[in-house]
Parts: sequence; C-alpha cells; structure tokens
Amino acid sequence: MKESGKLTGHFTLPAQKGMDNVVKMLCEKWGADAIRDSDGTVLSEELLNLGYDVYSTICLIRADQEWAKAHPEQCQQKYLISHPVTCASNGELRIKIQNGYSHEQYKIDTEHDPKKYWEVIDRTTGKAVSTKNWQYLEHVQEILIESPRKWHIYTVNFLVYQIWETTSMYNYITNNWTGEHQMGVDPRQPETGRHLLKYLDHWIETHPNTDVVRFTSMFYQFPLIQNEKRQNAYLDWSGYLDPMSALAMDEFEKEKGYRLRSEDIVDEGYFNASYRVPKKEFLDWMDFTQKFVRSYTKKCVDRVHKAGKKAVLFFCDHWIGTEPYIAGFEKLGFDGIAGPCLSGVELRRISDVPGNLFKEVRLYPYFFAVNLQNEPVFTGNGDPVKECKRWWKGIRRALLRRCVDRIGFGGYLDLAVEYPAFLDYVAELANEFRTVLDKTKKTLPYSVGKKVALLDAWGKMRSWMHNDNWPQGHIPECLSGLQADTEFISFDDIRKKGISDNIGVIINWGTANSAWSGGKNWIDTEILVKIREWVYGGGGFIGVTEPSAYEYQGRFFQLADVLGVQKEVGNTLSWGKNIQPGLTSEHFILDDLTGDIDLGATNSSVYLSSEETRLLAGTPNNVLLSTNTFGKGRAVYMADYKHNAENIRLLYRTILWAANMENELKKWFCSNPNTDCAYYPEVKKFVIMNNTEENQDTAVYNGAGKMARFSLAPMKMKWFELEEINRLCI
Amino acid sequence: MKESGKLTGHFTLPAQKGMDNVVKMLCEKWGADAIRDSDGTVLSEELLNLGYDVYSTICLIRADQEWAKAHPEQCQQKYLISHPVTCASNGELRIKIQNGYSHEQYKIDTEHDPKKYWEVIDRTTGKAVSTKNWQYLEHVQEILIESPRKWHIYTVNFLVYQIWETTSMYNYITNNWTGEHQMGVDPRQPETGRHLLKYLDHWIETHPNTDVVRFTSMFYQFPLIQNEKRQNAYLDWSGYLDPMSALAMDEFEKEKGYRLRSEDIVDEGYFNASYRVPKKEFLDWMDFTQKFVRSYTKKCVDRVHKAGKKAVLFFCDHWIGTEPYIAGFEKLGFDGIAGPCLSGVELRRISDVPGNLFKEVRLYPYFFAVNLQNEPVFTGNGDPVKECKRWWKGIRRALLRRCVDRIGFGGYLDLAVEYPAFLDYVAELANEFRTVLDKTKKTLPYSVGKKVALLDAWGKMRSWMHNDNWPQGHIPECLSGLQADTEFISFDDIRKKGISDNIGVIINWGTANSAWSGGKNWIDTEILVKIREWVYGGGGFIGVTEPSAYEYQGRFFQLADVLGVQKEVGNTLSWGKNIQPGLTSEHFILDDLTGDIDLGATNSSVYLSSEETRLLAGTPNNVLLSTNTFGKGRAVYMADYKHNAENIRLLYRTILWAANMENELKKWFCSNPNTDCAYYPEVKKFVIMNNTEENQDTAVYNGAGKMARFSLAPMKMKWFELEEINRLCI
Repeated sequence: MKESGKLTGHFTLPAQKGMDNVVKMLCEKWGADAIRDSDGTVLSEELLNLGYDVYSTICLIRADQEWAKAHPEQCQQKYLISHPVTCASNGELRIKIQNGYSHEQYKIDTEHDPKKYWEVIDRTTGKAVSTKNWQYLEHVQEILIESPRKWHIYTVNFLVYQIWETTSMYNYITNNWTGEHQMGVDPRQPETGRHLLKYLDHWIETHPNTDVVRFTSMFYQFPLIQNEKRQNAYLDWSGYLDPMSALAMDEFEKEKGYRLRSEDIVDEGYFNASYRVPKKEFLDWMDFTQKFVRSYTKKCVDRVHKAGKKAVLFFCDHWIGTEPYIAGFEKLGFDGIAGPCLSGVELRRISDVPGNLFKEVRLYPYFFAVNLQNEPVFTGNGDPVKECKRWWKGIRRALLRRCVDRIGFGGYLDLAVEYPAFLDYVAELANEFRTVLDKTKKTLPYSVGKKVALLDAWGKMRSWMHNDNWPQGHIPECLSGLQADTEFISFDDIRKKGISDNIGVIINWGTANSAWSGGKNWIDTEILVKIREWVYGGGGFIGVTEPSAYEYQGRFFQLADVLGVQKEVGNTLSWGKNIQPGLTSEHFILDDLTGDIDLGATNSSVYLSSEETRLLAGTPNNVLLSTNTFGKGRAVYMADYKHNAENIRLLYRTILWAANMENELKKWFCSNPNTDCAYYPEVKKFVIMNNTEENQDTAVYNGAGKMARFSLAPMKMKWFELEEINRLCI
Repeated sequence: MKESGKLTGHFTLPAQKGMDNVVKMLCEKWGADAIRDSDGTVLSEELLNLGYDVYSTICLIRADQEWAKAHPEQCQQKYLISHPVTCASNGELRIKIQNGYSHEQYKIDTEHDPKKYWEVIDRTTGKAVSTKNWQYLEHVQEILIESPRKWHIYTVNFLVYQIWETTSMYNYITNNWTGEHQMGVDPRQPETGRHLLKYLDHWIETHPNTDVVRFTSMFYQFPLIQNEKRQNAYLDWSGYLDPMSALAMDEFEKEKGYRLRSEDIVDEGYFNASYRVPKKEFLDWMDFTQKFVRSYTKKCVDRVHKAGKKAVLFFCDHWIGTEPYIAGFEKLGFDGIAGPCLSGVELRRISDVPGNLFKEVRLYPYFFAVNLQNEPVFTGNGDPVKECKRWWKGIRRALLRRCVDRIGFGGYLDLAVEYPAFLDYVAELANEFRTVLDKTKKTLPYSVGKKVALLDAWGKMRSWMHNDNWPQGHIPECLSGLQADTEFISFDDIRKKGISDNIGVIINWGTANSAWSGGKNWIDTEILVKIREWVYGGGGFIGVTEPSAYEYQGRFFQLADVLGVQKEVGNTLSWGKNIQPGLTSEHFILDDLTGDIDLGATNSSVYLSSEETRLLAGTPNNVLLSTNTFGKGRAVYMADYKHNAENIRLLYRTILWAANMENELKKWFCSNPNTDCAYYPEVKKFVIMNNTEENQDTAVYNGAGKMARFSLAPMKMKWFELEEINRLCI
C-alpha cells in the first residue's frame, strides 16, 4: 500500500472512453490501483494496458440484447395488480389492467394462460372470482368480469413481461439517454440459462485484460415499477417481485410441493414489502428464489475463476436472492463484494459480510448531474464536495467499527473534472480511508462487553438492510457507528435459540404491525415468555415507536409490564391516566444533552402504566422517553429516533444504561457527541475524529478511564499509539 | 307565562333550607315557578307553602340507608378487573385483586361463590384458568393461582359490592362533606324491590306539598370508579357496569337462554365503553338491563300518578337502562324529563326526546365552589357569569333548533348569592329563554331539504349521547345547532332498512375501530354495497378522522373509492404517492373562511387515491380536507373537526355541498359565522342571534334569498315578524 512513504491503492476509478489522460491524472491524484467501466462505457486498449487492475462490469441478463430480442418470451416477468375498480353498474365489468403502469416497462403476458396464472379478486369479499366468470380481452387489454357484484371492488393479479430492464431504465431516464431500451432475460428459462453461461465464457475469452469481473449484479433486481408518467409507482429495495415467471410458479410447485397463488406474491397489493411481516408462502418464495440464484451464480463464478480472474458481486441492483447474510454465501466463492454506500448502514452492509472476500464501497456522489434525490450535483450550482462530505461523515463512523478494503466512485469523469475542488477533496478522503486501513490493519476496535440485538421479523437475513428511512437513517444508522457490536435477530431466532448471553440489549423498533415491530409475533407466548425471562434476569429492552405492539387481551404494547408504558389507541379513553410524575431531569441517559430532547416525534399517545416508570421527556400522557425496571433488567421507551450527533449519544447512553453497563461509558470515550473515537487493541492504536465541519474540543478517556483534552480541526482524524494516549491521559 | 306583560315561569329554582328569603327574592328575580330540593337539602314548610310548584328529588336506591345497612348483600354490585400481574416466579402467584380500586367505594363480594361468578384469565393466552387451579384467600383479599405459567400475565374478573353510592360520593368529595357514606341498593333484589316500592308509597304520602317527583334518577349509575387516592380510575357516561349482580347473571341466563361470562362485561378491561364496537353479548346485557329498568320504573311512575303528582326523570346519574331514544320510552308515562346541560348536544339530548312530556334542562354553573373541571366558580376569583355564558352560547344555538319547556339551575343558593352580577345575568338569560318559547311556541324552525345522518355502531339509541369529546364538543355539537335536521343511524339500520330518501348526507366520524367509526362493520359487504349505491345515486358522504376504516384486502379506508383518499398506516410506504395536485382555494365549502383552515389535526397520513380528488387543505400526502365525486354523489374527507364558529360554518357548507344542496345556503341565512338565525314558518317569526361577546355585523338572507344587513350587540337576539324581515330584505 505504501509507495515511497505515500499511502496508495485500495481505490477503484470509473474510467471513461476517450478520456485516457484524465483517467491517468486521476489515478495518480487519487492513488487508484484499479479502473472499471460503467454502464454504457467501453474502455480503450490504452487504458486497459496502463498496469492498473481492470474491473469489468457485466450484467448478464441484459448483456446480449440480440438474444433478448430473439426470445422475448424468456424475458423477466412480474405479477402486477390492477388498480381497484368499483363495479358501478349491473351487467359486465371491464378493467383495463395495465392502467397506472408504464407501457415502456411492461407488456402483458399473453404467452401463458391467464386462467392458470392470473387471479381476479373481489376485494370486497376477499374471494377470487371463478375463472369461469371472467375473460381476458387481449385486443383491449381488459379483463371482462361477466356477472360482477354491483358495488364490489375488483382487482386483477396479472403477469407481465418486463420489456425495459430496471437499471438500464433508471440510468436512461436519469441521464436523458435516447436510443433502444434494453431488456432483461431470465436465466431460469433453461435455454436462456444455457445461453448466458456460453455468453459469459465468450465474454471472458474476449476480455483478456480484465482482472476482476464485476457482476452488476446477478439476475433479479428489486422492483422499481413506473407508471405511465415515468414516476415511481412502487419501489422496494428488498422486494422479491422480479424473479417471477410462469415457469417459476410451476417449478415452485414441484420444489415446495404446493402451488403458490398469484395472491401470495401480490399480497393484497402490498407486494410483501420488507415492512410487511412475512408469511410462510412468501418466505418459501424467497427461499426458492435464493436457491436458484445461488446455484446459477456459482456456475458464473466458477467460470470466472477457471479463467484466472476474480469475481466480485455488486451488492445492489439485481441483488435479489444473493443475500450475503444467509448461511452459505461463502460457498459461492466470490473474491469480493462491492456496494453503493451513502451511510453507515450501507457501509456495514458491505463490511459485515461474512467470508474471506474483499469488500469495496462505491461512495457518493455518483458522477451524474443529479443525486438520488434529483438535486443538482455535477451541474450548474451543484456542490459535489458538500454532497460528498454529507455522506462521508456518516460512513466514517461505521468505517471505524468495521473497515472495508477498498473504496471507489462511479459515474462519468467528464462531469467530475469540471469540479477541481472535488478532485482535491477525493484525494484527501482517499488518504483518510487508506490511513484507517494502514493504522488498524483491519483489526477490530474495542467494543463494550455485550452486544446490541435489533429484533424484527427478518433478523440476520436483513442485517443492515433497513431502507425504510433511507437516506436519513434511523436506529440502525446510529448502531452502525457505535462502540457496541450489533446483532440482528428475528422472532424465529428467539423461538429456536433463545436469547444469547452475550446480548446486553434488545431493541425493538417500528410501527405497529410492521416487520420491524413484529406484528402478531407479539402474541406468541413463547416470545413473550423468553423475552420477559431474559429482561428480568438483567437484560435491557429498548422499545422505539410502537414496540411489542399488537392489540390483544386488553393491551396494545404486549410488553407494557416491561416497558412501564402503554399506548392509547382508543380502547382505554375511559380509564384515568393517574400516574402523573414530573420529569426526571437527572439521569445517566441524559448526561451529555446540551439542549432539549428531540427524538423526532412530538406526539406518541403513550402513557405511563407503572408507578415505577420514570419520565425523561414528554408528559405522562404523551411519553417521548421513559425508563423502567423489570427484575434485574431495565427497559426504555422512546417515541421515535431522529439521527443526529446528540441522539447518537443519547441512544448510546440508553444502551449502556439498559444493559447495566454504565460503568463502561468512560472507557475509550469522547465526551463531545460531535466527535468519535476507537481503540484497536490488537495493533494498539487509538483514533479520535471530528464529525463536523467546525473545530471541536473534547475530553477523551482511555481504557483506564483517564482523561485528556483535545482540539480537533474540522473533519479531522487524529491517530495515537496506545502508549502516547495513555501518557497524555491523567 | 305572561304576568302583567312580563314573561315569567318555566324556571326551576334550587331551594335551600334556612334561606327562605333568598328563595323568595330569587323566585321573583328569575321568574321561577317551581322550587326543588337538592341532594342533602330539605325544604321548610314555609317554602313549601309559597305557592310555587314543588319539585322533590328522590333517589330511591339510596333513599333508605337503614334498609341498605340492614341488607348489605342487596347493595349494588359490579365486575372489576384486577390490574394485570406478570408471573415472575415458579410456584404460586398471588394477586391482590382490589389494588388500584377504592376501598371506600367497593367491597369484594364474598357472598357468592367466586368459582361461579369470577374468572381468572391468562392474558397471555387469552384463556380462563381452570377454577381448579385458583382459590380466593379472603383474609388477604388475594387470588392464589396454583400453577401459573411463568411470565404470563394474569388478571381476575371479580364481583364487588358498591358500598358508596356514586352520586353521593361525587357530591361528598366535591363539597368536602364529612359523615356517613351512603350506599345504593339494587331493586333487582326481590326483597329490596318490594321494599323500595313501599318506601316510595310512604314517601309520597309524607310529601303532600310535592307537585313533581323528580327521580334522580332511577337505579343504575354510569360507572365512575375511583382508585385508593379518590382519583377517577374509570369513567364512562354510557357504561353498563352498574346493573350487575350475581343475581343479574343468573336471571340473564334464564331470560336470554345462555350464561354471560364475566369477561363479556369486563371486555379485556375495556368494559364495553361506548367507543367500543358493541358485541352481541353486551347488546343482550343492555337489553336485559333496559327491560328490568323500564318495568320497575313503570311501577314507580304509576305510584306517583296514582297520588296525583307528576313524575320527572332526571336524565343523568342513574340513567342507565332508561334510554329515551329506544322505542317505548313514552309508555313509561313520565310527565317530564330533565337533564344537566352545558352544550348544544346536551340540550338536544333532552329536547329531542320523543313523547309528549315536558323537557327541562339544568344549566351551568352548578352552584358549587368548583365546576366539573375543578376550576373555581363560586369561590374566590371565580366568575360565574363568564362560566354561565361560556356554556349558554352553545346551548342557545341548539335551543333555536329544538326548544325545551323549562330551564333551571342546581346547587346551593348560599354560594350563588355572593355573586350579584350572576343573579342579574340569570334573570336576563331566563327572559331570553322565555322569549324563545313565547315567540316560537315551540314550533320547529325551517331546515334544509334533507337530513344529516350520523352513522356509527349505536345509531338512534345513543342520539346526542357522544361524550368522547366532552365538554369541547365535536361533530355532534356542531350539528346540534345547524339549520339541518340530524338523524342518528347505525350499521344495523342500514342493514335492515337501507338508507332513507330524506337523508342528504351521511357523516362517519371517529378513529379506526371505534364504535363511532364502526370497526369491522366496514368489511360487511351489505353495508358497503348499500352506501356505495346510495352515494352514487346522489347522496353525500362526509368522513372525518378515520371514516370507513378497517384494514382488509389492501385498503384501510374501505370507502376510499368514494372518498378519493386513503390512509398510510404503514402498508403502502413503497407505493409512490404520485397524485400531487395543488390546493383548490376556490370552493363553495371555503367561501366564508376568513383565515386558514384549522380543523384540529395537523397530521393525517392521508393521501389522495384518485386523480379526481380536490385538495382543499393540507398537502397531497397529508390531506386535511378534500372533496371527491362518486357518480352523482359527493364525498368529503376531513382529518378532524374542532368546534368553533368558523368550523361550524365550514361543516354546514360541507354538508350542503355534499348533499348537492348548495342552492339552499342563502335561505334564512346569516353571512357572519359568529351569528345564527332561525325562521319558524308556523308562527312566521324570524330571529338573528349574536353568538359572541362582541358586536357583530351580518348580512341576513330571507327565505327568498333577499338580503338585509344588521348589527347585533354582544350575545343579543333580535326577533322579527316574517313581514318585517321580508320588508327589510332587498
């Protein structure tokens, strides 16, 4: 990594055709050791021969458009649901099923028998209409229901072919491209499956200069459904709609022993989004998809290896089914994994991936005119340095907890070079990253004694994959940079394995009935018994928003006995809310607070249900923050969490308090919430970091609780040897 | 009514022992024609012989305390639920069942076998614990559960005797009385039932001067449960807990053919409060109670009549089971009904009672030191005139719609006489009331062509009995004074009778799953079909807060197709909310608005679900007010309603718009929302009224839509003959 004293490498540059000199200049300036192409670019022979590692991007499913055109029936499919139509007349009802969906993106599947694969559902009764009573009128793309029930609402679950591949469509529209729309084929189709492997072989042969094959990514994208106006109609970064096809429905039946209904996927129109508590059929569908994706991925990776090249998974776009947090990911043999990264959560999503593979993140801004929120960046008054720092601040917190091996950027250099301050800042950022790697040697930092477990309906499978609050970040974003290790556990984990002794705190966060809060899991006796037992014995439970929420047997928060609070959802209005203590203003949790507590929510309708509960913010009938004890255990209720420096500290203290670990606070600790620190015991290095663009003063405590004071320049990191920091602390 | 040109009478004065001169003075000043005693007072012979009608109060169930003391087992009973206890140890669990409940008010029933009448319920599983596995330890008032399941939550439904009668307790505590607590006996007990009738006979005999027997009221009070600290633990003005007894449980079984569970009454601890969608067992319990109350009431009334006296029902306190809006009330033979009244709703609750009986309201303030909110009135800096006007303003609106026959006050004169300005104001108010009576002759005012129907799970039975927002008032308070007739309909009414042609608008108002919104009724196909049919044909539907709300088959607002809006409850986060119109600022509904729309709520999470919907307030993803059309019908969504002059007007316009009756607006109409008017066609009288304590100018439109301008002094009413107003309008 060091080249005549200067840190270099660990950096991937997006190259661009026709800009060879710029590429060379930036490789030098940014210390890049690898170049890669982007969607729509092809690298010149000269660039390929510069001596850098060459990353070549391949998206197999859209790589061979000739094949796609020749085999439209092997393109990817999807179930859509027609918009609901109220039957307002006697006689027949017609539903124009594709209304509200893009005709550029989707084409109704007329290859497969609608009567076999589609469902017409009476949403007023919840029952499917008999296939005898409806027909599809292909010439007008309408479903005709023959004897509909007047004033009932009907929808149609129907299969479409996706005729515009999602990533291609996104890049197209964002960059105002013109020209042909690319299609995406489905490797589950045997003929296409065989063809794509042959295509890959040929591609490998014809890319002798490629060192690393970057799969961008495998086969099935998360759904990004557009309407006729090119607006997002539906977007779920974890959605499993895209691996669908008539063939998949049939193969599922063979593999799982029962036939899926279209409704199992359509899910009343909610599409089993990640915030929905998953049902068995959907989990089976995920498993079925994952098995296929893994087996086919393995074939691709093996081919790359056979050619002596490395294989990298770009963990975005068509990532569905590749989940690295499901056991067995290592067996796919990837040499590396890369992901886009604009937050601590997205950093950890990559850096925590198990297995001996290198990890790379693509930082933001992407060298596109606008950012993901469609705000100008590399255009007009855009400020790419500001945009970069905005995300890098959060990423750095997480980087100190679990470092990756490489960073990089994406997009088009011709846009970036117009902003010289940005070019300078990236050089600085790259060195900062390399310094972390160089100092820590990727060893793990000191963490407090016990772990934080985030409990939801998904658990490990969706580690660091909470996108509901993207890009602001919520509880997981806070956790990504905390001096406490995080584990993701599901209700099933608790059922099967109980709660591990090395967990200090369970956090349950989310709105009622969501997968994050847990929904009906909260009336499972086994869950309640195990959690109560564990908290009573000394565990910590932090409930945020609507924890343990499910209306049943006279309670909405099932763990009201643990939390000491209950929520008024309209069933207890007649009961006096007579527990009316004043605010507790002195509390370990609040000790670093400089202003008022602002966790986001101002109304919770949560009230105190125990005389023992202490109110830390809000009022007794509108609790915003409270604490309770349960046996030896402790519990905290927070009405919400808003991600900022003050609240990171507040949540950290909450975790330590709930876990009975207050005495671990002033151990490798910065007093100023705008700063962070980390100690790496294996290499005896210590770092303090300013997370703001202003100067910050902070007291710093070493592992023995001794203290020194430091002043840090904006955004700066300051490294110490163990002996050095110990000497300074008194 | 007229005595030498001066309006007099129609006024009941609360007399007081030892203040005969004051009574005489106030009878003269206020034009009273009747005097009555209050709880704890006895009138002197002199007062009784002054020539005024004498109203005597009797509360039979607490009238004979000697009987009560001699028959404690015939006192009233109630089911309570012990506070939930989490079982935190192996072995046995003990629950001190009366924890959290007043020991002054309740005594655990040890007369009847707990194993027969009580239930111990595992609230974690929802199952009752076998009676073999628990016992009641009387000496410590604990339930001992022998093999509880660790970490489950247990509660006990247990029977108590009420040893302090509720109204007596309330008056005691409010007035800091000392002395013996009065008990209330249960006329369902055959011996007590016979005794009370004998007692009544004797009482009648010994009250020869009494003209009117004022039953205050019959037998069973709404529940007002206190805790050990004399705080309200539970209060439901419509609650049916008090008619309970072991005997009632047994008789219910005989009458209805099945045995109630204690849990049918306890209802998970929610006690079937009026905001709960009623279940069949509870409706049966209400019916069972009503039958007994009516039959026993009839016996009382007959005895009063036999003695040549009149019988009046005080419609508060022990009113449970006397509901005047259930068919057959007239058969009880009451000569009058009286009720406390601090709002338009409470006025209409009395004035709308069917039958040929006189109607009297007791106005506020009660002559107590403090008001119902415990604020000072007749003490220190209290301002009883302000307190009186505060309520009278709202009452007057309703009075113009349906007038009562009499007004009165309650409480203790020694407190009132200390405030001479109050004595003067009541004289003024009494004349104002008598003027309404004199001018209108109790004929009905002009109303717009079609009715407003308020749809909830209760319907007519609970006409004007919405207490959830007491005393602020909500939609019903607005309706109580509108120039539109109101009907209260239930889902069952729609099932049985459909929707009447004379209804112009249905309002469905309330939070999801409440009796007001309707809960599961909204997934009853029959309801949906009938309402859609009716709206489509030209009806109006106004949904407030969470109308037609029940999560089912992909929708939360089941009538989203009618309303044009849907609510985000966490299931459609991934769906783009792409219907983003600007605000419609010009609309019939908004035409009288002078400032911003403020309906109370600022957050609704309601979004537009139709391109046709017009947004009148809020944003497309946080709709506060919107309109939609459905066939020939119209629908309006309002996120909330806050009662004030501006919003009364807004809701009135909303009703007219939704009912396609905009052209009825400027017909007997005041342009200024701070004023009201009414036209009485039978007597050809017209009145305009200033509802504020400032001067108000207003345009006034007569029945032909012609206009005149008036200026009204604070609080003033101005009466016109039809010819006069028609002459002034041009």
